[in-house]
Amino acid sequence: MLPRVTLDLSLSAADLTACLVDIESVSGNEQPLADLIADALAGLPHLSLHRDGNALVAQTVLGRPERVAIAGHIDTVPVAGNLPSRREGGVLWGLGSCDMKSGLAVQLKLAAGLAAPSRDITFVFYDGEEVEAERNGLLRLSRQHPELLKADFAVLMEPTGGVVEGGCQGTMKAEVRTTGERAHSARSWMGRNAIHAAAGILDVLRQYVPRQPVVDGLAYHEGLNAVGISGGVAGNVIPDECVVTVNYRFAPDRDAARAQAHLEEVFAAWDVRVVDVAPGARPGLDQPAAASFAAAMGGEPRAKYGWTDVARFDQLGIPAVNYGPGDPMLAHSRQEHVELAQIGQVEDRMRAWLTA
Amino acid sequence: MLPRVTLDLSLSAADLTACLVDIESVSGNEQPLADLIADALAGLPHLSLHRDGNALVAQTVLGRPERVAIAGHIDTVPVAGNLPSRREGGVLWGLGSCDMKSGLAVQLKLAAGLAAPSRDITFVFYDGEEVEAERNGLLRLSRQHPELLKADFAVLMEPTGGVVEGGCQGTMKAEVRTTGERAHSARSWMGRNAIHAAAGILDVLRQYVPRQPVVDGLAYHEGLNAVGISGGVAGNVIPDECVVTVNYRFAPDRDAARAQAHLEEVFAAWDVRVVDVAPGARPGLDQPAAASFAAAMGGEPRAKYGWTDVARFDQLGIPAVNYGPGDPMLAHSRQEHVELAQIGQVEDRMRAWLTA
Repeated sequence: MLPRVTLDLSLSAADLTACLVDIESVSGNEQPLADLIADALAGLPHLSLHRDGNALVAQTVLGRPERVAIAGHIDTVPVAGNLPSRREGGVLWGLGSCDMKSGLAVQLKLAAGLAAPSRDITFVFYDGEEVEAERNGLLRLSRQHPELLKADFAVLMEPTGGVVEGGCQGTMKAEVRTTGERAHSARSWMGRNAIHAAAGILDVLRQYVPRQPVVDGLAYHEGLNAVGISGGVAGNVIPDECVVTVNYRFAPDRDAARAQAHLEEVFAAWDVRVVDVAPGARPGLDQPAAASFAAAMGGEPRAKYGWTDVARFDQLGIPAVNYGPGDPMLAHSRQEHVELAQIGQVEDRMRAWLTA
Repeated sequence: MLPRVTLDLSLSAADLTACLVDIESVSGNEQPLADLIADALAGLPHLSLHRDGNALVAQTVLGRPERVAIAGHIDTVPVAGNLPSRREGGVLWGLGSCDMKSGLAVQLKLAAGLAAPSRDITFVFYDGEEVEAERNGLLRLSRQHPELLKADFAVLMEPTGGVVEGGCQGTMKAEVRTTGERAHSARSWMGRNAIHAAAGILDVLRQYVPRQPVVDGLAYHEGLNAVGISGGVAGNVIPDECVVTVNYRFAPDRDAARAQAHLEEVFAAWDVRVVDVAPGARPGLDQPAAASFAAAMGGEPRAKYGWTDVARFDQLGIPAVNYGPGDPMLAHSRQEHVELAQIGQVEDRMRAWLTA
């Protein structure tokens, strides 16, 4: 029998991050890590614990006037030769070190250490964030146990480099299609080439000037890009269809309907089909809870360009921001790493705010 | 036991065409038809018969000063709801009626009826023409039994609408590639989109003016077309590669090397990789045998745009033309059909030339 592994929450957040990285938890394989977190939290008498699959919710129930949710996903993208973790000077390398086991370590340290915070806290640890939306543990919790997620404000501990990143941009995937007429390629003039016609779509994309709107005081940066293209019937046939898949990243002053209307206008000459959409979230830094959090964390809040689960809290009517250790540019890269000092800094600031 | 089917070569060429259509011989399934042709030819004492797999060569050996090869493939493209054959007025409908069982019927009628032609004849019936080159029975014969294909002139009985079609255009497939730099699509400006860059390739294709050169008196018509395009990594990644597959149909005054040089010049800004090439064949109507054949068949010879096995005879040093019943535009279509009168006309003219 193997010796029983446990998570030692008395370790520093930096050391705990290394432990968490070394427990592989690629999406779909979260159970061993969820079990360990559940065991560790079960030993904390000041927390009320709920489990749903591989998602865990641990709450203080102190009757404080305000409740904050502190959430993080426990899964990672696939292994890419970057396990186990490796420490070099003040840097920890390894899968998930940045996205987001350093954030998880901070959550666990706060959960273990704050028996009597000034705000009630709901810690959320969830599975399936790095894959398709239907597998997302936070979505599942919001459908099956919405009462567990009730809060006045939420912090998603995604990597933000230790700076508050407000809201998030929405993302829409659409197929833009050209049609033509098949013919034998030895007599190409008998047909109409749908791939050649796609040049018009690509020209629109090349000339597109993305908006950079300021929303609630933060500057967003949109983008409209081809992320796929396909066409062709056979090596000797003039193709009668070409599909350009575009990804529109839209600032949170636009909802899904307006984003779609924009694509239909930009690609008015072609058939446009939306295949996937996740609306963004306004930063909400004008709301008291978010503003006080941003002030306490220090630094100049900035916009979150990528889509994150803050949008899910937004849809539940809960203002939310992103805040965690780790450079977001390193997320999903083989070279993922995190500065250990930043983990401790984020932990200290969060603890100060939660006890003030 | 099923009654033994035989090919009755005393039928008219039109009736024989209907029989041949009803013996399904999609590429890969030629054996039943090859067996029946072999049986029918074996009963003809004036022919010397050779078999290689499902290819058959039947020769007169009369010591005539000139030898002509008359060749046709016995396979068809896949069934498309167009079997069995159906006669309507003077038209026969069905798979292969045009490409090229009507031509085969003419070959068989000539083989059976011409015991003492004025020119020695080599009839070639071969498999695997409608699929990749390596399965082509004429190629196999040219490698394993080149002596069987020796001739001064060759007629390929592909559908030409009863008009001599000289030579054929070559065909080259090449991949033209753009490269870029990956980035997360939420920060697209950090990358370089290779699909957007492919607009340049498509613009070249849209503006391309194909040559229409006159070669040995016949007007060819080139074509340069995208027949495939692919690119894309994932829905949230700026793609770093896009491949446009182009098909260049080139007139027979260009060989493969010059065709490739042309593509490299047209697409000088990109990486070009030739993946497949089959050179064309000059019409050779200035050669005595071809000229006398064209004159005897009547009508105005024209250029063959598609690639055919005349190119293979050309590479063996044998002038060759395409000549057969059936509209070449109908080949490979569900609506394949042939005018019965044209079959008899082609048969009569061939017989007259072979006995003159």
